[in-house]
Amino acid sequence: MLPDIPEVVVERLPVYARALPQLASHGREVVSSQDLGEQLGVTPAQIRKDLSYFGRFGKQGRGYNIRRLVEELRQILGLEREWTVVLIGVGHLGKAILHYGGFAPQGFHVIAAFDNDPETIGQEIAGLCVQDVGELPPTLAGRTVEIGIVAVPAAQAQGIIDLLVSCGVQAILNYAPIAAHVPAGVHVRHIDPVLALQSMTFYVKDSDQPVR
Amino acid sequence: MLPDIPEVVVERLPVYARALPQLASHGREVVSSQDLGEQLGVTPAQIRKDLSYFGRFGKQGRGYNIRRLVEELRQILGLEREWTVVLIGVGHLGKAILHYGGFAPQGFHVIAAFDNDPETIGQEIAGLCVQDVGELPPTLAGRTVEIGIVAVPAAQAQGIIDLLVSCGVQAILNYAPIAAHVPAGVHVRHIDPVLALQSMTFYVKDSDQPVR
Repeated sequence: MLPDIPEVVVERLPVYARALPQLASHGREVVSSQDLGEQLGVTPAQIRKDLSYFGRFGKQGRGYNIRRLVEELRQILGLEREWTVVLIGVGHLGKAILHYGGFAPQGFHVIAAFDNDPETIGQEIAGLCVQDVGELPPTLAGRTVEIGIVAVPAAQAQGIIDLLVSCGVQAILNYAPIAAHVPAGVHVRHIDPVLALQSMTFYVKDSDQPVR
Repeated sequence: MLPDIPEVVVERLPVYARALPQLASHGREVVSSQDLGEQLGVTPAQIRKDLSYFGRFGKQGRGYNIRRLVEELRQILGLEREWTVVLIGVGHLGKAILHYGGFAPQGFHVIAAFDNDPETIGQEIAGLCVQDVGELPPTLAGRTVEIGIVAVPAAQAQGIIDLLVSCGVQAILNYAPIAAHVPAGVHVRHIDPVLALQSMTFYVKDSDQPVR
């Protein structure tokens, strides 16, 4: 097994895995931490430190072999496999998620979508027929679904997350604006545009909008 | 001015500012870093260290006065003001953003939406008439728009971000799967569900899906 990797490091590895092939597409075989850092707006020291958790990818002063580094990162992150995903909540956001073309090419396949609204249940969206959320447990029984995407209102989100966990889902992507609780061994990531905006307003100055 | 605050700390402050009022709603006036940490799934030490950048909010062993801490955090983060936002890209995702009810109550007001698709331009969505993206510079001229939300395809995103920056926008919330470049003084946050998923698959084990 790998040593204990800080979660912030694990969160940065996919960024590296995505940026490297773009550098390779310019005909390069080797990249320095300097070049990769410039591309991503992070320091070379951070890149070297992050990658050092996984052994010596590069030699001092020689840079990283791009193809080998991408392969290793994809292996470490489990990106060489297919992953099965269910979506709960098919409002405006859930519909946008179903229509998003970025998941499948990366190996994330939404195989079922659920809602509790009678008008939404039965609709076909992006090739999937929306099911009643009551059908979630029987649909997941006996098959491996690793990932749940939660796009329900805040008040319902923790209950849905608990339901997914009880069905064996190990990873939750939560779009609801709550700090979700999951048991040990289950992982959760939050997508929260309001928090992202609030972490930028700290920096924005010299504006003449009224104080409320 | 405040000392140099690490960006990761600034990113966590809105999480604290949101969780604290929920604790207060249970009738409490004071919270310990232990309680807040449990609520959020982070260590008490991290909370104490993060808050220590902004002076002494609490007394050792006594906890934090919730009301005062929330007020200070909101002041620090600029959450007591109204902020003006434009959206570029009104596909499925952009529509979901316009319909999302979570921005306005937090002081983020989307005042205009732009697209380049002739069929989308002129549509009224959530009370806004979608404008041609060519009208972006004249629409922003002479008024203060601090924030741009970018929900266009990856290939167009950097160009749109450059356009927003040239119009004086200081903060970009980017939904396109690219590592966007902005000049010094402009801030960017990325919303990228694929990267979030890829940072969880590292942890998910014991699954019997085929390797691709």
